[in-house]
Amino acid sequence: MIRSVILLMVLGSVLLTHPAHGARKREEQNIKTVVEFYEKAINQKDFEAASKYMGPRYTQHNPMAANGPGGLKDFIQFLRTKYPGSHSEIKRVLADGDYVVLHVHAVREPGARSSAIIDIFKLENGKIVEHWDVTQEIPEKAANANGMF
Amino acid sequence: MIRSVILLMVLGSVLLTHPAHGARKREEQNIKTVVEFYEKAINQKDFEAASKYMGPRYTQHNPMAANGPGGLKDFIQFLRTKYPGSHSEIKRVLADGDYVVLHVHAVREPGARSSAIIDIFKLENGKIVEHWDVTQEIPEKAANANGMF
Repeated sequence: MIRSVILLMVLGSVLLTHPAHGARKREEQNIKTVVEFYEKAINQKDFEAASKYMGPRYTQHNPMAANGPGGLKDFIQFLRTKYPGSHSEIKRVLADGDYVVLHVHAVREPGARSSAIIDIFKLENGKIVEHWDVTQEIPEKAANANGMF
Repeated sequence: MIRSVILLMVLGSVLLTHPAHGARKREEQNIKTVVEFYEKAINQKDFEAASKYMGPRYTQHNPMAANGPGGLKDFIQFLRTKYPGSHSEIKRVLADGDYVVLHVHAVREPGARSSAIIDIFKLENGKIVEHWDVTQEIPEKAANANGMF
C-alpha cells in the first residue's frame, strides 16, 4: 500500500515536471502577457501600463514604427491623436515556445475599411522583447464567402 | 533490483506517452506537412503534388482566392502564367496544436517590391483543411533598421 502511494506520487511529479508540461505552462503565461499588453497598448492606448510587460529591449520590425520602447510610445501617441476611437479585436491567439501570434481585426475609424493584422511577439524571461507584424486592408469584395478571420 | 527496473520502465513510458510529449510530436509532423505543401504549391507551383497534403476540405480565407481545393488550383495556375519565376522564402515557422504559422518573404518578379506574408494553416488528422493569410508590400523606407523579418 505504501509502495503504491509512493509510486503514484512519483508518477504524478513526473507528469507535472515533464519538460513539455512546463513548456505549455510558460506558453500560457506568455499568451496572458501578450494579450494584456496588446489591450493596454492598442485599445486603452496607455503606454505606461503597456510598458510593464516589456523587457529591456523592444526590437521593432513594423516599418512604420521606430525601434525601441520609445517607438511604441510615439505610435500610441499617434493613435491617441489621430485615431482615438480605434479598436482592435483579437480573433485568434497561438503560442509556440517564446513566440505568441495574434490574429487581429483592426478598425481605425467607424465606417472606414478595416484591416486584418497578424502580429508575432517574442518574449524573453516572460517579457516582450521583439515584434513583427503584417497588415492588409480587408477588401470590399472577396472571391470566397469565408471572411478573413 | 527487479522493482527498480520496473519503476524505471514505468517512468520511461509515462514520459514518452505524456500528452504534452505527444502534442509536440504532432506539431512537428504538422510543421513538416505545411512546409512541404507550401514548397510544392507556391514555389514548385505543382497542384497535384500539393494536393496530397490537403484534407477533404480547404476553407480559404485569402480574399483573392476561391474556396476549396479548386481555388488553390486556380491560384497556382495564375502564378504559373503571370509570375512563373515567383519565389517565397519561409523565414519563420511556428506551431500550436492544429495550427501552423509561416512568416514568409515573397518575391513575385525580380526587381519588383517584395511582400511580407504571414500564413496560418489549420490541420485535421494531419491534413491541411483551412488557410488564412495577411500580405503587406515591404516599403522602400522604414522607420527602423530591423527589416520586416
